[in-house]
Amino acid sequence: MLLPTLPLLDPAHKVALQAHLDDLTKPQGSLGRLECLGIQMGWIAGTTRPPEPEAFLITFGGDHGIARHGVSAFPQEVTPQMLANMAAGGAAICALCRAHRITHRLVDVGVAVPCDFPGVSQRNVVRGTADPLEGPAMTRAQAEASFQAGVDEVATLPNVPFALLGLGEMGIANSAVAALLTVVFGGLTPEEAVGPGTGVQGQALQHKVEVVKAVLAKHRPDPSDPMGALAAVGGAEFGAMAGAMLAGAARGWAVVVDGYIAGAAALVALALEPRLRDFLIWSHRSAEPGAKRLLERLDIEPVLDLKLRLGEGTGAALAVPVLRSACAVMREMATFSGARVSGATEK
Amino acid sequence: MLLPTLPLLDPAHKVALQAHLDDLTKPQGSLGRLECLGIQMGWIAGTTRPPEPEAFLITFGGDHGIARHGVSAFPQEVTPQMLANMAAGGAAICALCRAHRITHRLVDVGVAVPCDFPGVSQRNVVRGTADPLEGPAMTRAQAEASFQAGVDEVATLPNVPFALLGLGEMGIANSAVAALLTVVFGGLTPEEAVGPGTGVQGQALQHKVEVVKAVLAKHRPDPSDPMGALAAVGGAEFGAMAGAMLAGAARGWAVVVDGYIAGAAALVALALEPRLRDFLIWSHRSAEPGAKRLLERLDIEPVLDLKLRLGEGTGAALAVPVLRSACAVMREMATFSGARVSGATEK
Repeated sequence: MLLPTLPLLDPAHKVALQAHLDDLTKPQGSLGRLECLGIQMGWIAGTTRPPEPEAFLITFGGDHGIARHGVSAFPQEVTPQMLANMAAGGAAICALCRAHRITHRLVDVGVAVPCDFPGVSQRNVVRGTADPLEGPAMTRAQAEASFQAGVDEVATLPNVPFALLGLGEMGIANSAVAALLTVVFGGLTPEEAVGPGTGVQGQALQHKVEVVKAVLAKHRPDPSDPMGALAAVGGAEFGAMAGAMLAGAARGWAVVVDGYIAGAAALVALALEPRLRDFLIWSHRSAEPGAKRLLERLDIEPVLDLKLRLGEGTGAALAVPVLRSACAVMREMATFSGARVSGATEK
Repeated sequence: MLLPTLPLLDPAHKVALQAHLDDLTKPQGSLGRLECLGIQMGWIAGTTRPPEPEAFLITFGGDHGIARHGVSAFPQEVTPQMLANMAAGGAAICALCRAHRITHRLVDVGVAVPCDFPGVSQRNVVRGTADPLEGPAMTRAQAEASFQAGVDEVATLPNVPFALLGLGEMGIANSAVAALLTVVFGGLTPEEAVGPGTGVQGQALQHKVEVVKAVLAKHRPDPSDPMGALAAVGGAEFGAMAGAMLAGAARGWAVVVDGYIAGAAALVALALEPRLRDFLIWSHRSAEPGAKRLLERLDIEPVLDLKLRLGEGTGAALAVPVLRSACAVMREMATFSGARVSGATEK
């Protein structure tokens, strides 16, 4: 499997970006988190005045053998139904992409039944993963093919020099798979990683923890073999998001991670290529407990905190206007010297 | 002084809005804070499917006699300099308004020197307030005129049925005035209300607390006489923002509060007309300590938490895309019945 090659970002450029930011007509630091984002945008774009980025968002659909163990509040047939709803423009992610001029792509990479309707990119590598309590969720070849599907989908996007690429997903039971990957690659315990997902509560939530523990006990996934671990626990949309993230970063784009599921895919991608970190924007603090704990563990302050727990890429889409704002500030604000504005009084 | 008359919002409509929201194709509650905002937008707009709102943002400039007591890190001449910078399009708020299709208005309501350059609406009612340690910052007539200036500026905006109206300000030393008003109308202590503003630290910060205490001791402002209290401690941009907020709500618009300074103006407006609360969106949790404490006291969860402390209306501008997102979700998402998507499994 070939990994996309990421451009080298020069640490020295950050000094020039900070100097530019500190000359803009505002008290230093007064734009808070927007300033950090502006520096990251400029760093990735290779300029102190980043252009307004085009934005793309890909939603990958997949199904999961683990669903048969009652780890989701919704039945598995919802995955293709929601892909159809997205293809028709009726899902939350569709409304948000229209609202913010984001090009939305929809990909079947692992749905259990054919999603052969217009508007779905056909990149299926597995018709739903296998039950990870019986064997590996995917073969290694399927896992690698899912990664390649993400790379290939990005290759079809316009090759602009700087853009935002958001990644999201739809897949019944995939919060259980995200928990598995977050234990393997993020160092959380199963109890820390498992949460309600779309609405599992009480005894069913405890059962979800037990299923996750049993899968881990069966496969003992090795984080130093990311593709092997991904194959063991699943699933296809995680591999595809990981591939798309690295392919986006390879283009010199900022990669916008959605919530818990996309975050777990980012852990896989980071295990494959740690330099991806420089290109990643964590869009929001999901209401899913494992997502919050993972962000704490990684010491990451996300852009938004709206208690979202929907997926599809909705948090990534909502972060796009904030990221464009950060670019606009860097690009368009006047400098103290240029605008003849007095600085702070010397102490 | 005539108060604008706010339309009555029917509590029963919220039931219909919640029912509509819960029929949209997503797990109930999964859009978190965006759902609350969607309901508020629909409630104000009077429809379960609110249109994409136009957005207006007014930045009011004013100067403050209290500045002579060393309560700001920047000299007073920065107020007109920054108004000139805004008129030229070089300030942060200009970049953000351009990025998000927000119509930006700039008003001199209380700047110490004439700001007679193109792009500034001339509504000056006081050439900088008086020193509140010597007498009232404004006469009652000036305070009422500042309120009316805000009402009058809103009257010049296109009279569309539903819109977002953001309020912001520019005024050296106005975080000291915000602290005064937050003590009077928000119930905070001076120590809780006073913060660094644009960068006052250490001994200067303690001095700022002492100045605020001395002003309060001199005037003992009465919150049951909002215009009297506003006149005593200042300042004109607070009165103008309060007037604009009530005038915006009177049109049936959602009113977007920026940070600490605009929040203090909202307290004045709420003291004049408590029903304003239904129309208010608190855009962000400012890094200014008094702002955080005020939001806690009011039990308000703002839209964003980006550690902004700039003012101008920047936080309100950044919240606009989130509010439009909330409208888009309410307006454009498919329903479970319409999209033939299965609901959660019955327990």
